[in-house]
Amino acid sequence: MKRTLSAELPHTPPGSPVRLQGWVHRRRELSSVTFLVLRDRTGLAQVVVKDGADVPPEETTVEVVGVATANPEAPGGIEVTEPVLTPLTEPAATPPVELWRPTMNASLPTLLDHAPVTWRHPAQRAKWELAAASLRGFRGTLDAAGFTEIQTPKFVASATESGANVFQVDYFGRPAYLAQSPQFYKQQLVGVFERVYEVGPVFRAEPHDTVRHLAEYVSLDAELGFIEDHRDVLRVLREVLAGMAAAIHEHAAAAVERTGARVPVVPEEIPVVRFADALALVGAPADEPDLAPEHERALGAWALAEHGSDFLAVEGYPMAKRPFYTHPWSRDGAGASPREAEGWSNSFDLLFRGLELVTGGQRLHRPTAYDEAIRARGEDPADYAAYLQAFEHGMPPHGGFAIGLERWTARLVEAANVREVTLFPRDLNRLTP
Amino acid sequence: MKRTLSAELPHTPPGSPVRLQGWVHRRRELSSVTFLVLRDRTGLAQVVVKDGADVPPEETTVEVVGVATANPEAPGGIEVTEPVLTPLTEPAATPPVELWRPTMNASLPTLLDHAPVTWRHPAQRAKWELAAASLRGFRGTLDAAGFTEIQTPKFVASATESGANVFQVDYFGRPAYLAQSPQFYKQQLVGVFERVYEVGPVFRAEPHDTVRHLAEYVSLDAELGFIEDHRDVLRVLREVLAGMAAAIHEHAAAAVERTGARVPVVPEEIPVVRFADALALVGAPADEPDLAPEHERALGAWALAEHGSDFLAVEGYPMAKRPFYTHPWSRDGAGASPREAEGWSNSFDLLFRGLELVTGGQRLHRPTAYDEAIRARGEDPADYAAYLQAFEHGMPPHGGFAIGLERWTARLVEAANVREVTLFPRDLNRLTP
Repeated sequence: MKRTLSAELPHTPPGSPVRLQGWVHRRRELSSVTFLVLRDRTGLAQVVVKDGADVPPEETTVEVVGVATANPEAPGGIEVTEPVLTPLTEPAATPPVELWRPTMNASLPTLLDHAPVTWRHPAQRAKWELAAASLRGFRGTLDAAGFTEIQTPKFVASATESGANVFQVDYFGRPAYLAQSPQFYKQQLVGVFERVYEVGPVFRAEPHDTVRHLAEYVSLDAELGFIEDHRDVLRVLREVLAGMAAAIHEHAAAAVERTGARVPVVPEEIPVVRFADALALVGAPADEPDLAPEHERALGAWALAEHGSDFLAVEGYPMAKRPFYTHPWSRDGAGASPREAEGWSNSFDLLFRGLELVTGGQRLHRPTAYDEAIRARGEDPADYAAYLQAFEHGMPPHGGFAIGLERWTARLVEAANVREVTLFPRDLNRLTP
Repeated sequence: MKRTLSAELPHTPPGSPVRLQGWVHRRRELSSVTFLVLRDRTGLAQVVVKDGADVPPEETTVEVVGVATANPEAPGGIEVTEPVLTPLTEPAATPPVELWRPTMNASLPTLLDHAPVTWRHPAQRAKWELAAASLRGFRGTLDAAGFTEIQTPKFVASATESGANVFQVDYFGRPAYLAQSPQFYKQQLVGVFERVYEVGPVFRAEPHDTVRHLAEYVSLDAELGFIEDHRDVLRVLREVLAGMAAAIHEHAAAAVERTGARVPVVPEEIPVVRFADALALVGAPADEPDLAPEHERALGAWALAEHGSDFLAVEGYPMAKRPFYTHPWSRDGAGASPREAEGWSNSFDLLFRGLELVTGGQRLHRPTAYDEAIRARGEDPADYAAYLQAFEHGMPPHGGFAIGLERWTARLVEAANVREVTLFPRDLNRLTP
């Protein structure tokens, strides 16, 4: 007999024989009858068990063969009666938290230590469903815009952007490093495909234990050639975010409801403010090299009040705070005289509800510019020979961005800590489960 | 003026002004005229340059503003005349191989040492386009079948399947390892989502330099619960392979033509042979524990001759050669008496044109079975505590498979070495570019 999923049960004609498979979500013994709530990947189904019958403990996997029976009080109006229960494994151990309660009452350490079990809670699981739908929206948007998916190496011969926070590997007896981003490779592949994207793990040996840093996270990277400046990058980013939000509504509507996620409306044009103006807006000294978290929050509030936008792009960060491949400011009459432009960059951060979600911008593309930029940092261009090949052999003006998946999901569900939305987080202190 | 892509040029009304951007693919100086062939992500366009005008060297990126002009001899019937050429970077260095020749004449070391440049060759680039389309087909098929995409950690506390061939990392001063597969995590997440998939890098410290092993490759993993046995896994695998082939036809038709790729027709049902029978078929001794490459080739030829199939599943491998989580043989009357079944497993390898492409099978799901299997290997179940949580708290019968992306693409284009179809291969000797 074909399996009936719990979501199919309400559409099953009463009187039909059915076969369900899933987990014992809840046993509820009343005086005259026992209810078994069965959980499968599509939801819950109610099974009416005759008094005295043996229902295995919660979380045990079972098969139930019975009859679909109308009952206006059952979820979806149909329950299963006259069940024959077959356990599919041994009686399950008692879960560390009660998974059948509507809200999971677990501290963060409990949540993380027992991740294989706590992710089973429908409200917890729904958080990842938002993430999975977002990945689908990211790729779908870029596929439609002529981007090519790439898969680039995680083993690299030297640190990607700086020597700090890099993990070292024993690579056949010599040192190698784990890529902190696919930056160098996505640039090189703009030389091949013009427009590329990659979804994959990146590795940062973050020495601090904070609510928004992980040793390993999922980076959603895109890079494109033949741009005018970073504003072209921002336009693609806008489409991507809109596509991610649309995919959530399309593929994870139930998860939105269950988590109460606030899926943003992405404005047709994301408001942009110059870094220098942003400092002034929040009353920070004009020589601050970066935005502090409280500045980001204040700017988020300002964007919402002033533009009705959950997003705000801050452009023109100081060159000194950006990696060597960053393109200097080149936007014309948009406010900056050549003198004012000095020291600023064609790069941006995107704030989402007052938190940094994306870093992006235009990159250098002329080989002489790379030579100069690397020397200016006191480094030797020869150390970057493999990467610089692409530029010596002709690269277009280009730029790109990287979205942190966990930060995105955390903002959607207003999680205080990115670990709450990471399947199996890795940090300074945590390497299991 | 909006950019015109080279693929759009044939549909542009003659006389229209156009603006193209791309690479100087080829300069061809005739006695009276110079042709510039411009390459962009969609193909090639012909530009007619007045005698004496300066065309930058091949691979330099340029912008061309000119007029679309009918010429029956131009590709697509339209060329660009009266061009104004603006270089977008400095004159490009001479490429290590002539990228404009229809066939790239490069040794494997040249191909790999200069990957950022050699991937630009249209025939080389097309190989990756097959891979990218395959990834799309993999995900699309599984999305439609109710699978959830997952992203699992690459840092693990111990070796996934065996202590051999594992890379060690300095993880904040203590040792950690790089995941050899997402096996443990995809199983745990079957406990959450029932059906999961992941596309991502896996790491194997392969000590041998062979044409089909890499230190890092892209694994296409799927795992599903509530199966009868490994044949259910094989049925999903069949759908996935058909979906990958369909996506290639849909999204990479030009790449198929350019590479001459032989995209397989996946039969409605993949032929299956028992491991013991496979040995007999190829005349190998009955006590061989595995198939040698020549056996695989012979079986591939047999499947083609006997079943007209490019694919052959070999099921019932000896337990001794499979990892500890492998489910023992449990298929009924399909030929094996209980005694004959002893020592065999519910696992399979899938041969594609006589080469192993996929490993899959049913896994153990009862906690006592894990306890026993781990002890039987002389190991302590306590060392697997984090993983075993999932089983103690109720898992369904389940199984899954892993496809190696590079092996798949290599077979499609009949590449002798997987490195030819890997963007930036990593092996015993190679860590750059």
